[in-house]
Amino acid sequence: MDLGISGRNAILLASSRGLGYACAESLAREGVNVVINGRTAADVETAVSELATKYSVLATGVVGDSSTDEVQEELINACPTPDIVLLNGEGPSPKRFSNISNADMTDSVQRSLTAPLMFLQRVIPGMCERKFGRIIAISSAMVKSPNPAMSLSHGPRLGLTGVLKGLSKDLARFNVTVNQLLPERFDTYRQEQMAQLAMQLRGITYEEARAEQVKSIKAGRLGQPNEFGDACAFLCSAQAGYISGQNLQLDGGSYEGVF
Amino acid sequence: MDLGISGRNAILLASSRGLGYACAESLAREGVNVVINGRTAADVETAVSELATKYSVLATGVVGDSSTDEVQEELINACPTPDIVLLNGEGPSPKRFSNISNADMTDSVQRSLTAPLMFLQRVIPGMCERKFGRIIAISSAMVKSPNPAMSLSHGPRLGLTGVLKGLSKDLARFNVTVNQLLPERFDTYRQEQMAQLAMQLRGITYEEARAEQVKSIKAGRLGQPNEFGDACAFLCSAQAGYISGQNLQLDGGSYEGVF
Amino acid sequence: MDLGISGRNAILLASSRGLGYACAESLAREGVNVVINGRTAADVETAVSELATKYSVLATGVVGDSSTDEVQEELINACPTPDIVLLNGEGPSPKRFSNISNADMTDSVQRSLTAPLMFLQRVIPGMCERKFGRIIAISSAMVKSPNPAMSLSHGPRLGLTGVLKGLSKDLARFNVTVNQLLPERFDTYRQEQMAQLAMQLRGITYEEARAEQVKSIKAGRLGQPNEFGDACAFLCSAQAGYISGQNLQLDGGSYEGVF
Amino acid sequence: MDLGISGRNAILLASSRGLGYACAESLAREGVNVVINGRTAADVETAVSELATKYSVLATGVVGDSSTDEVQEELINACPTPDIVLLNGEGPSPKRFSNISNADMTDSVQRSLTAPLMFLQRVIPGMCERKFGRIIAISSAMVKSPNPAMSLSHGPRLGLTGVLKGLSKDLARFNVTVNQLLPERFDTYRQEQMAQLAMQLRGITYEEARAEQVKSIKAGRLGQPNEFGDACAFLCSAQAGYISGQNLQLDGGSYEGVF
Repeated sequence: MDLGISGRNAILLASSRGLGYACAESLAREGVNVVINGRTAADVETAVSELATKYSVLATGVVGDSSTDEVQEELINACPTPDIVLLNGEGPSPKRFSNISNADMTDSVQRSLTAPLMFLQRVIPGMCERKFGRIIAISSAMVKSPNPAMSLSHGPRLGLTGVLKGLSKDLARFNVTVNQLLPERFDTYRQEQMAQLAMQLRGITYEEARAEQVKSIKAGRLGQPNEFGDACAFLCSAQAGYISGQNLQLDGGSYEGVF
Repeated sequence: MDLGISGRNAILLASSRGLGYACAESLAREGVNVVINGRTAADVETAVSELATKYSVLATGVVGDSSTDEVQEELINACPTPDIVLLNGEGPSPKRFSNISNADMTDSVQRSLTAPLMFLQRVIPGMCERKFGRIIAISSAMVKSPNPAMSLSHGPRLGLTGVLKGLSKDLARFNVTVNQLLPERFDTYRQEQMAQLAMQLRGITYEEARAEQVKSIKAGRLGQPNEFGDACAFLCSAQAGYISGQNLQLDGGSYEGVF
Repeated sequence: MDLGISGRNAILLASSRGLGYACAESLAREGVNVVINGRTAADVETAVSELATKYSVLATGVVGDSSTDEVQEELINACPTPDIVLLNGEGPSPKRFSNISNADMTDSVQRSLTAPLMFLQRVIPGMCERKFGRIIAISSAMVKSPNPAMSLSHGPRLGLTGVLKGLSKDLARFNVTVNQLLPERFDTYRQEQMAQLAMQLRGITYEEARAEQVKSIKAGRLGQPNEFGDACAFLCSAQAGYISGQNLQLDGGSYEGVF
Repeated sequence: MDLGISGRNAILLASSRGLGYACAESLAREGVNVVINGRTAADVETAVSELATKYSVLATGVVGDSSTDEVQEELINACPTPDIVLLNGEGPSPKRFSNISNADMTDSVQRSLTAPLMFLQRVIPGMCERKFGRIIAISSAMVKSPNPAMSLSHGPRLGLTGVLKGLSKDLARFNVTVNQLLPERFDTYRQEQMAQLAMQLRGITYEEARAEQVKSIKAGRLGQPNEFGDACAFLCSAQAGYISGQNLQLDGGSYEGVF
């Protein structure tokens, strides 16, 4: 299927590894030039070089924390007229509600809600003017089904979900779409990390921790990053211009609710 | 993007024209053999011949009302081991709630809820055994946002939405996914029909009727059938195996709700 | 709290015991005259006599299956100008999807979707004219979270959910509200029945079966029928006239989704 | 209807007027002792004296901004063992997305998300220990249907919606419930304010502004504060202990979605 986006330009926040990288790879494969971002220089360089080599697209790297003003500026300098933007960022560690401090929440909100919105302010006017934009946010299954130990994650993320939905209503007429992908349990370093945490907190073995992750998934397996990347690429396609304001769950059919 | 379904076999109910045909075309383009169905022989023949010629796939036609036992039997005979099934059927005309008879509702339910489920009973066991299945239903935006004049449509359709969600939970572990597409206002004969109806009922001109249809869509335009077909093809892809139980709205960003 | 409905008249389908009776009792306590309905004459008589004695309201009984035309007619004869209507009916037994016949679904739809709608056609015009109406349907938690073994229940019930939502939009301006109550696991004969079924099907003890019912409830207990009845009474109150189209879950906080 | 909460103690944030005051009044009428809070001393004093006089309950006032640590401390001092807590606060003015600054969002989040959560940390342990708690938040219809001009309101509020839902799952077993009320267009100073704003921004008359407010409501009228207060009182009742994690819309039936 020709996605009609060869030659388009994308900025992908937090894309040097994991699901962000998977999105970058699927887009690069479709001929999209990509700006890769991450906090570790080596990871960014590896990602850039792999994608440039494998897919013959323009790949650029911007090292740093994309929730800061400076890095956001650099990202725009690296790609002044983006057609596609991926919002992404590492989520916080689980924390019991009673232990969350004002500073914890303020920090999480800055990273997962305010900073992404500030970045969108930089790119939306141009997208509207050029009559093409595909904004995708990597959110979490928890925005529809909150886990009480993860308030620092789903609180700000659900805030973002709401603001993006509102925005989508204003942007539709400019062929600028805004959608979220809601992953649950993909086979990335994040689940590795969560398994390590479960081992420490609950004294279970690695195999038990991984088996538990799979057990909560109706498909009986973790998702593969390339499945995630291809869903992202599809929502960024020319022919997905009529799809906006959606929260697509990639969760192996695990969500219990009808809607 | 390679959807990984070349050589797969699909049965598509009510696919000789409109959105059903668009789905058939997108699948055929990806190398899927298709069984086309419709109530008018000439339409079915035209569709079959166009797809076979254009995409070099096996295209077969089954003429008749797919809500009947006989036609369902013929469809299975035409393709005994389907990998992909599209549930679709013409919706009823608008009818004021106070004018709906018991027979009206019984008939709508038979067409839009019971008959599709009876057809699924024929194909699910094989899909589970073969560890691949993609079930897609063309539903309507109204299942999330019911229009009081369309109870005969959204009543049965919402019933189907629920049963399919339930089913999706049991089928995920067999790599059999179940998803719905929720269109709102695509440029097909259906909107043409609705425009004619509006002209008659409210004495407005064709241009006014069409303008009203567009006005309710935030994207400022009707959707194109090929946009719909490609979304269907993506959800039928090999790499969409982790996506199930979803209700994807194709509505130009028009739905007001967050979820 | 004065609910402002003393002297109002209510017809309650399937109200001789269980949650239906609990609703009747809460309304009677608030001074509402009630028409009790059930299929067993003795149950209806007992209910009528208890309520009339205890609350000094007018209580009338109509014996028979409220999904039939004749009994619906009798109900209206017993109370020609109802202010409050409770839609209720016994749900079907669980049945594996593969075993559901066309007749099973047709029958369930007639009982749980079409018949209630036919009854509403009889009462809505008068409610609109008199500018007061409170329509409540006892639905099920499964309409938001379908259980694959209960398609015969949640299919038709979700259909009803949609039609009632559509209707609510047209009726709001007449001070006629339409709401649903979604119970999950109340301490009635229904859970008793489900426990017996679990004992037979899975060879567990009564205590195990009951413990399992409680285990699925976040509140750690079953709900009490009077809690349900009072929620119904509140939604029927004069001051609930601004609440319509809602699906209130009474499930001990068990539903996982945000909305 | 006896709500079973006479003699209970409530802390109500931002309750000196508007919907917050309406909640305080309904609770006081049911015999609940109330701590009234607001930023204007005169308003607080009036409210306290009215409620104490009219309902013979203990009414106390705490003047100040409840999003600050100091005022939260004072509130707890005024009522160390609250059974009922109302989260409420004035929403921000509308602001176009492109004009929102990082500081705007940070400030709104502090007021509408973080501060309420910090307050809950102070009261939840005691509620769990005493096995009774009713937490109600006054949210907004916009958390289900975001208005693009109100990101500063629905962003933080939707974040709160998610955290409260997560919390509700952990608290249900202690008979501590958490619910939100979602008003749309009640006849308070807030709608007065919005009307004034519309007059200024769009050059319409007061009558036009008020007529527009009503026009968006399917009930054809604004809600009355006492209707809101009584819904709050019902959710705070003893018999509402099985209802938690709900978002009850009080919107004259205006929300378009099924759920």
